[in-house]
Amino acid sequence: MKNRGLLIVIAGPSGAGKGTICRELLRNYGENLELSISVTTRKPRDGELEGVHYFFRDMEEFFRMVEDRELIEYANVHDNYYGTPKKYVMDKLEEGKNVILEIDVQGATKVKEIFNEAVLIFIIPPTFADLKKRIEGRGTETQKDICKRLKNAYAEISHAVNYDYVIVNDDIKDAAAKINCILIAEKCRLPRCNIDFEKFREG
Amino acid sequence: MKNRGLLIVIAGPSGAGKGTICRELLRNYGENLELSISVTTRKPRDGELEGVHYFFRDMEEFFRMVEDRELIEYANVHDNYYGTPKKYVMDKLEEGKNVILEIDVQGATKVKEIFNEAVLIFIIPPTFADLKKRIEGRGTETQKDICKRLKNAYAEISHAVNYDYVIVNDDIKDAAAKINCILIAEKCRLPRCNIDFEKFREG
Repeated sequence: MKNRGLLIVIAGPSGAGKGTICRELLRNYGENLELSISVTTRKPRDGELEGVHYFFRDMEEFFRMVEDRELIEYANVHDNYYGTPKKYVMDKLEEGKNVILEIDVQGATKVKEIFNEAVLIFIIPPTFADLKKRIEGRGTETQKDICKRLKNAYAEISHAVNYDYVIVNDDIKDAAAKINCILIAEKCRLPRCNIDFEKFREG
Repeated sequence: MKNRGLLIVIAGPSGAGKGTICRELLRNYGENLELSISVTTRKPRDGELEGVHYFFRDMEEFFRMVEDRELIEYANVHDNYYGTPKKYVMDKLEEGKNVILEIDVQGATKVKEIFNEAVLIFIIPPTFADLKKRIEGRGTETQKDICKRLKNAYAEISHAVNYDYVIVNDDIKDAAAKINCILIAEKCRLPRCNIDFEKFREG
């Protein structure tokens, strides 16, 4: 039997650098790793592709999926809906792939309710001032959106206490290496390590 | 304030390869790592040095240390006593060093009683047959000692369930790399990561 993959949830406030860290993680430690693809009602940003970055759906189809329990979690973030497709994640885990969910702070705790074995990692920038700079520097949002994101980010920091791990994103490469270590370490944790001690003693 | 070091306990049955793994760990990931030195009443083996491999003490001095509570734990293994000097370990942790204790299976759980934050790692060889081969191949023991070690090893395997992590030692380099990952991951765990979220939000 193939060992089940590990579900790793990466969350944190807007501007913490979650997306960049996930890309770095896939580039350097991607061998057995899949990034889950979210369903969203948000309009695509420049360069975002259907089925690669997101599954873009209209509100009607999104709530059809909610009704039919096809989403592990969904949340409204900055007036757009985002959800995690359950079947996609479960299929990958069954194949033995480790799956990363890069989702918002509220969504992460919902995943834990369904997948108790999920590992929750909270990403924060070194200081709140850094976070402000990153959100403003993104250049894809209006001033109103920026204010909203900052206000949300401030509130979201308090959710960190519900997570298993916290990583301060002061260096992208370092942060990705730490997440890879968390993955390796979690695979050695006793309830997961899949060693049959009785069989071992007979072997 | 300097962050307190992490106490990592490496245990497992005789012949699991604990000693070799610890040496590999110190060679490749030794930057902020110290191997604790045990006190023992055992006679030195060839090449073993006082204050480097062990503090060799006679029975009288050993039990003086026990009486004066200078040992975190002590145990009788194969008719010899081994103990962990409390002051040495605490000083290193306070300096911010990560400390490895390579001790026997019974000792490890006693350490956890005193240092609740200690991380317990259990090392097992791939199969019991491998373990037998390693104990026999050591060539430093009599046949009677070998039988005793094998019998103990068989019983000790059942202690694995009390540990935080289990590592199958099928490759020394790989096992050492996994322990280094456990160390990095544990430093990111929420109760340890030493982030002042209130201060962060003001920063």
